[in-house]
Amino acid sequence: MKRITLIGAGRLATQLGRALFDAGFIINQVFSRTEESARVLAERLNAEALTNLDGLRNDADAYIISVKDSALCQLIPQVCEGRGDKLFLHTAGSMSIDCFKGFDNRYGVFYPMQTFSKTRDVSFEDIPIFIEGSSEEVQENIRTLAAKITKRVIPLDSENRKYLHLAAVWACNFSNYCYSVAADILSEHGLPFDVMLPLIDETTKKIHAMNPKEAQTGPAVRWDQNVIDKQMLLMKSHPNWQAIYEVLSNNIHANDKKE
Amino acid sequence: MKRITLIGAGRLATQLGRALFDAGFIINQVFSRTEESARVLAERLNAEALTNLDGLRNDADAYIISVKDSALCQLIPQVCEGRGDKLFLHTAGSMSIDCFKGFDNRYGVFYPMQTFSKTRDVSFEDIPIFIEGSSEEVQENIRTLAAKITKRVIPLDSENRKYLHLAAVWACNFSNYCYSVAADILSEHGLPFDVMLPLIDETTKKIHAMNPKEAQTGPAVRWDQNVIDKQMLLMKSHPNWQAIYEVLSNNIHANDKKE
Repeated sequence: MKRITLIGAGRLATQLGRALFDAGFIINQVFSRTEESARVLAERLNAEALTNLDGLRNDADAYIISVKDSALCQLIPQVCEGRGDKLFLHTAGSMSIDCFKGFDNRYGVFYPMQTFSKTRDVSFEDIPIFIEGSSEEVQENIRTLAAKITKRVIPLDSENRKYLHLAAVWACNFSNYCYSVAADILSEHGLPFDVMLPLIDETTKKIHAMNPKEAQTGPAVRWDQNVIDKQMLLMKSHPNWQAIYEVLSNNIHANDKKE
Repeated sequence: MKRITLIGAGRLATQLGRALFDAGFIINQVFSRTEESARVLAERLNAEALTNLDGLRNDADAYIISVKDSALCQLIPQVCEGRGDKLFLHTAGSMSIDCFKGFDNRYGVFYPMQTFSKTRDVSFEDIPIFIEGSSEEVQENIRTLAAKITKRVIPLDSENRKYLHLAAVWACNFSNYCYSVAADILSEHGLPFDVMLPLIDETTKKIHAMNPKEAQTGPAVRWDQNVIDKQMLLMKSHPNWQAIYEVLSNNIHANDKKE
């Protein structure tokens, strides 16, 4: 496997494309409906930019589709049809391998579990890539591909991957939103966000050494009702924060009493 | 200032006591209502263990009170009375300096903003310590004390410190709870928590380089209703998680549309 075409030029495609390119793969084409996105990524990867799938060539060994989940099912027929001998992969944690069902191709899933930005390059080496293939032989091909860019290749079926993706939303997207509220509170009181970084860093380091339930601290886990009531009042002009604060505090408390 | 007595032997007192001891201070006494806690910390700091405040001696330069917020106001009179020339500090982010009002002492606040465990030693060097003194001269004394264990000493009044503490609950306690739910989801599906660590680490690293709102990824910020609906269903046996998921997703979406 040498030549790869990327369908999609978003955050994941940008970072994955870069990692594959750096690992020595040739990127043939980069497709995006948005001309600017296609062009920027294609230039970076020395590839042809494409905004219409009619121009999709047959000369790649693998086609990697990284688009919004809702667009995936619509795109697959256009990409797969007439390319029976190629390998087709999607990168969506929450989508089943069965998206490809009915097409006469070798196909699978290639899900690098990470939070990507277009402008922030990440090293793939430690990113776990979860793979699934339409056959054992295909899965071995996907493993070989993944192993070129990471040390951690983990086979996982679609059913369990759905839960993995759900867990990732909690661990990454929701915790980041909590940082975002903290940043807003600090900013409303003229305090710089960077005072919070040592605390955030330690919160993360701790769970390398103990499980998150053990690591839990704060007024909710010690059920300091006095602090909780006062903090609720501090947010009286933000009823949406109050609602989240209340439900999270109650659940931290209930979780602590479990087992 | 050479000799310090600690009132309280919990997580914060344990780590702060260790940092002060390592910086060369003499720890005279360690008080805790719980005999085991007093003994363990006192042994570590080469101090006298105390379970009854009647035995509190007068030979410390500073008394640092690190107890549950609800116990603080009750303890202060017993600790402060009859020791008019000493320095008294509490370490509670959410409590005002006015807890000490009415006592004829030099007093203040010494709030190291960090998440502490008894068994996990942390380096104080980068932990911001927020200070407030009953007078300018007292505040300078507190600054000198704090500067022995950290590079970041930040004066902050009680009013703003309340909001700082609220932000810390969001950034640390609530994000840790999100990790905890992720761990439960993985465990229910036989997946090890450590696959999540590279994602969690990167989520944290990202906000050193961009603000959390910019760093936000996931189905809620791109409003992928299809994924959101499916993930809600995956949690049907956990209505409490569903409630949090829904309110967080709606707020991430609303936050993205602001400004």
